[in-house]
Amino acid sequence: MPVVRISAGPDRSVSALTAIAEGVHRALVTAIEIPEGDRFQIIHRHGENELIFDPEYMGVERRDVVFVQITLVAGRTDERKKRLYQEIVANLESGAGVRREDVVITLTENDRVDWSIGNGVAQLVDGTG
Amino acid sequence: MPVVRISAGPDRSVSALTAIAEGVHRALVTAIEIPEGDRFQIIHRHGENELIFDPEYMGVERRDVVFVQITLVAGRTDERKKRLYQEIVANLESGAGVRREDVVITLTENDRVDWSIGNGVAQLVDGTG
Amino acid sequence: MPVVRISAGPDRSVSALTAIAEGVHRALVTAIEIPEGDRFQIIHRHGENELIFDPEYMGVERRDVVFVQITLVAGRTDERKKRLYQEIVANLESGAGVRREDVVITLTENDRVDWSIGNGVAQLVDGTG
Repeated sequence: MPVVRISAGPDRSVSALTAIAEGVHRALVTAIEIPEGDRFQIIHRHGENELIFDPEYMGVERRDVVFVQITLVAGRTDERKKRLYQEIVANLESGAGVRREDVVITLTENDRVDWSIGNGVAQLVDGTG
Repeated sequence: MPVVRISAGPDRSVSALTAIAEGVHRALVTAIEIPEGDRFQIIHRHGENELIFDPEYMGVERRDVVFVQITLVAGRTDERKKRLYQEIVANLESGAGVRREDVVITLTENDRVDWSIGNGVAQLVDGTG
Repeated sequence: MPVVRISAGPDRSVSALTAIAEGVHRALVTAIEIPEGDRFQIIHRHGENELIFDPEYMGVERRDVVFVQITLVAGRTDERKKRLYQEIVANLESGAGVRREDVVITLTENDRVDWSIGNGVAQLVDGTG
């Protein structure tokens, strides 16, 4: 169960942001096999100078970074995570016009009991309550 | 010691946001027994289309989700966490007009040394410095 | 490899925010020895009433808190973390006009495989891909 927080700069259009969110979700479904309905995403649109990044660190030429921070339940293998990164950048490139170099992704893991997706129930340990 | 990040949509009024923040804090005090003064909260007001969620995943009918992301020191039991979720949704329903179905909560844990709440001191390991 | 999320209130100027971001980065470079180019920062400017904090918890007199949330690869010692806090507050005080009492810092750790800083590559486990 992921929550995705996306931070993008002022030059991304509303439709591009929608496509970015869709592309990230699609990658989560295909690469780590979350259910289609398991979608929770937060978009932050930033002004000028609010996203700061190095334009060449580790040999990647960045121009207009989109930050994708994903909080998810622990347990995915390294291979799944790597596949997730590949599919996110592929989807954002093809569907949202984001350069592959401009996608910065971080994962933060927590436990099943650390989620409640409505009604105050901890659905991942107690089911639909 | 928690930091709470709340993301709410454009239809929540300023007074509703204040009540949401208060309701989350109240639940932290009663359910996991943080001190009354241990309050650190960040509110993000989002525009249209910036909060994305499934309207029925796991049988919960969502309409206008409020995301509550809580970073806190590790060590709370599962029972405390579940009680926290229940009290948050109860407080938000009664005090801020938020439907129970619309409250999505995630917890992320860290360690005592991962906190400095002023003056550059790691208060949870070194006291008030 | 850190990502830094900074939340500041409406009374901070754009130049102050730039100086805050610079001061946090400088402290990461000197205190925990990240490479100069390893800079990824997200700034959120908040409106009135969107940052909530106790004005005296644990004996610190807060007036206009700047929240600094740092996600970074696990493995830094406690001593390094404490030095990081000290250097952040020193830099923000001298360079950005932020009172030492007003700097609230939290760290959240993850693993090397949890990072992709462009091109969909997990650079910290697979190099520059």
